[in-house]
Amino acid sequence: MKIALAQLNYTIADIVGNKEKIIVALNKAKDSGAELVVFSELSICAYSPDDLLDYTHFVNECTQAVEEIAKHAIGITIIVGSPTFNASKNGRKLYNSACILQDGIIKDTVHKTLLPTYDIFNEARYFEENSIFKTIDLNGKKVAITICEDLWFEMDRFNYLGNPLDELSKSNPDLLINISASPFNINKKLERFKVLQNACMRYSVPLVYVNQTGVHTDIVFDGNSMVIDKHGKLILQCEDFKEDFRIFETDKNYDELEFKERDATELMHEALIYGIQNFFNKMGFTKAILGSSGGIDSAVVQALASRAIGAENVKAILMPSDFSSEGSVVDARQLSENLGNSYEVLPISNVFESFGATLKPMFEGLEFGLAEENIQARSRAVLLMAISNKFGHILLNTSNKSEMSVGYTTLYGDMCGSLSVMGDVYKTDVYKLARFINKDKEIIPYSIIDKAPSAELRPNQKDSDSLPDYSILDQILELYIEKQKGLEEIVKLGFDSTLVSRIIGMVNRNEYKRFQAPPIIRVSSKAFGRGRQIPLVSKW
Amino acid sequence: MKIALAQLNYTIADIVGNKEKIIVALNKAKDSGAELVVFSELSICAYSPDDLLDYTHFVNECTQAVEEIAKHAIGITIIVGSPTFNASKNGRKLYNSACILQDGIIKDTVHKTLLPTYDIFNEARYFEENSIFKTIDLNGKKVAITICEDLWFEMDRFNYLGNPLDELSKSNPDLLINISASPFNINKKLERFKVLQNACMRYSVPLVYVNQTGVHTDIVFDGNSMVIDKHGKLILQCEDFKEDFRIFETDKNYDELEFKERDATELMHEALIYGIQNFFNKMGFTKAILGSSGGIDSAVVQALASRAIGAENVKAILMPSDFSSEGSVVDARQLSENLGNSYEVLPISNVFESFGATLKPMFEGLEFGLAEENIQARSRAVLLMAISNKFGHILLNTSNKSEMSVGYTTLYGDMCGSLSVMGDVYKTDVYKLARFINKDKEIIPYSIIDKAPSAELRPNQKDSDSLPDYSILDQILELYIEKQKGLEEIVKLGFDSTLVSRIIGMVNRNEYKRFQAPPIIRVSSKAFGRGRQIPLVSKW
Repeated sequence: MKIALAQLNYTIADIVGNKEKIIVALNKAKDSGAELVVFSELSICAYSPDDLLDYTHFVNECTQAVEEIAKHAIGITIIVGSPTFNASKNGRKLYNSACILQDGIIKDTVHKTLLPTYDIFNEARYFEENSIFKTIDLNGKKVAITICEDLWFEMDRFNYLGNPLDELSKSNPDLLINISASPFNINKKLERFKVLQNACMRYSVPLVYVNQTGVHTDIVFDGNSMVIDKHGKLILQCEDFKEDFRIFETDKNYDELEFKERDATELMHEALIYGIQNFFNKMGFTKAILGSSGGIDSAVVQALASRAIGAENVKAILMPSDFSSEGSVVDARQLSENLGNSYEVLPISNVFESFGATLKPMFEGLEFGLAEENIQARSRAVLLMAISNKFGHILLNTSNKSEMSVGYTTLYGDMCGSLSVMGDVYKTDVYKLARFINKDKEIIPYSIIDKAPSAELRPNQKDSDSLPDYSILDQILELYIEKQKGLEEIVKLGFDSTLVSRIIGMVNRNEYKRFQAPPIIRVSSKAFGRGRQIPLVSKW
Repeated sequence: MKIALAQLNYTIADIVGNKEKIIVALNKAKDSGAELVVFSELSICAYSPDDLLDYTHFVNECTQAVEEIAKHAIGITIIVGSPTFNASKNGRKLYNSACILQDGIIKDTVHKTLLPTYDIFNEARYFEENSIFKTIDLNGKKVAITICEDLWFEMDRFNYLGNPLDELSKSNPDLLINISASPFNINKKLERFKVLQNACMRYSVPLVYVNQTGVHTDIVFDGNSMVIDKHGKLILQCEDFKEDFRIFETDKNYDELEFKERDATELMHEALIYGIQNFFNKMGFTKAILGSSGGIDSAVVQALASRAIGAENVKAILMPSDFSSEGSVVDARQLSENLGNSYEVLPISNVFESFGATLKPMFEGLEFGLAEENIQARSRAVLLMAISNKFGHILLNTSNKSEMSVGYTTLYGDMCGSLSVMGDVYKTDVYKLARFINKDKEIIPYSIIDKAPSAELRPNQKDSDSLPDYSILDQILELYIEKQKGLEEIVKLGFDSTLVSRIIGMVNRNEYKRFQAPPIIRVSSKAFGRGRQIPLVSKW
């Protein structure tokens, strides 16, 4: 049997657009002589439409679109993902389904069994779990169709009550198909391959695995669809971070492909660029703006944005204050020139002074402090947003995960932006990204990379005045945030107790700032945002 | 049997504080001769700790605290709510449990069966559902212990697979106990009473129902614990929005109490005040600040805050621009004087001009527009946050739900604040609140209530220039947001198709603003925030 794997980049709730994209690909599959074409999980509405699923007409529109696609299922079988209604009235009102389209109609439907409800996943909010296990006969082959998490029973992340593969294997399937919406993180490629490989080896069955690609606001899907044979050998692999279309023939012999691990920094670089691109393309935006401070965070974001949407579409705004070093402005100018970005210099001294004059009746005689530091950061935000409002540039946020963690940021100041590019990238990784960007030539001036990090909001300020060395800080943060270790566990790993306690306290106290942060492109296994739901008012 | 109902206001993750509060109440119960004292769902950590449950040491600390409480269970039985580990390794790693403490130890544990995972609820993210149904013998009575949603099977909100009361009723219990964390909304009191009453009548069993009170950031719990007899008669009822402690004697005859419905505006008024109070008390804040525009929204928030934390702790900042009417400043001064709040007048003309001068190289020759309107709103935010930073006042947000819905707000401008007091209150209800506040005397000047709403960001601006009449707008918004109706369904109810389509479009387009909004005190059945998860990048 000739099977087409269609790895596409859908847009959430763009039911008509997704349908058209699916029809283009299924026609390509027909032209290639495929007897089956496989699309990813919830392909008709993209994964995940979240609470749009609460709107009955949304699900109706999905169903109608699948019916229209079914009309094209003549001479070919189509597997497409869609929410479907649970007709029984027992259990939650929807299923997360794979619709099998044949002979112009929806011939059969298979539902997802394991419903992930952790981190960014929320499926038990909408879907009832499948309890009927059957293989589907396709061109004389017994095919077990599964959906994403159905293959992930073995993982220790979430204890499910039963393994759908145990049930399905009772029918001795000839082929396993899995339609997925499996999100990216920098460790996911290898983890995912091993899970899929184990399933093939354990049940002695080949697997056709079709994942979606694309970014939906914050959540990155890499794609990386593949075919693994029943011995666990990788025999076909689709691209990362782009659409792909491949034909697999079940009766053909394939050489084993080497599973290529990729460098984490390279993957992160690619994922962030893909995230910016998808955000702009799907929202219909073309131009970006950002505050260029002469520091490393804004420099890396500026370079990533230039790669993502074109240097000619990125505008840098340099907004020096009296506390900015001369070097910062020189470096920022050089960066824009290296990248080919337009830039403007708008000094904030006058605005800062006029805030001071306005506040004089209340502030007279009081010392310069946090309020005055924040006025600078917030004045910059007002300028950036004014330019955004005037010319339609979208403001990119340049905060990194280290400073977002400990609250070393100004709410409504440098925390502004439509999209946080690096809010899931620790400062130590920002340096790695900078060096990666410079691997062929000096794009980010080395003077930016080499200088001591500073917010430049008061004279001679350095990050190291208030924070430990980033190499220590980031390790503690990762243990607390990604690994969910507590104080005692972290201290046991060799860190100073007072320091760890202080850092954890800072992370907890700053939930209120992150509550109002922009969406953050997710590249780790635990990003701030929807995948980490920590109470704001608490005594933790 | 003498049973004490302990309706307490816990703080999330304040395990030590909650434990101490529980011990004080159980000693009071002992002193009253009670043989059983009942606390609410997850009382040891407050409902809901959300992803803190992912931290193993968090759950360990809860368990240890319950063990310490158990030492006091001498001569009295204590029922306390806590997360507990699922020892079986099958299913999710935790249970949402009622721990039964007797003879100085945790004698038994009962788990929650129905796990709500809709709107603000997320229990399937953490908990495995109970599958063992047993009654507990307490002083010779067979007691069926349930947890919150276990009594809500009949509701159409979420189709559960089985009704735990059907299972428990097989043992013919003498008494039903339910420990709850049942959140408030303005329609909830009657709805909840009917659900509980139906359970009693259907299974012919009396019910002791103990709910938590208090507000956790955005989610309000009213309390309203009660006892209903086996005929469905209300015989004991605790207070709304405060801690309460009552004794119920199973063998005593009680007269039927009238279930008092309360006026929606009065309830909303009380809930919002309680929300502000809890936010300040639990965070350790004392002083509030807000921008006082002379409009009705800020006036109502100022009055609510004055009631919540004391007039002497509320400071109003009047920040007129060249577009502010003389009346606005006069009205705002009068309001502060009526309320007894201190206030300052900080005109923004100089700041606005200095932004104009700074932006001149980019804006010269361009017309006044949205950018300039927003500079005014954002300059005010910078001033308010500077005062907040300098003196420790907490900024209250004054946006209402109508403007939050359609995006008639400035991100990083009037959308700033630590807490949105009225982000779940439609404009038409803001007027009702204003009249309710004025019921005994003119606190909010009638000139504020009677004037046409205006943002005053350009000459002669009125809300009605860009928005339909609020009485129409709010109906459409409620149908779309609370009732989750689509365009066609709303139009069928008699609204203009073009208007409905425009309003829905505005709601959908402004997800990006609400994404960065402060937490909103929830008083409706569907508030913006965690209970309404709509994708940002989408074609909906």
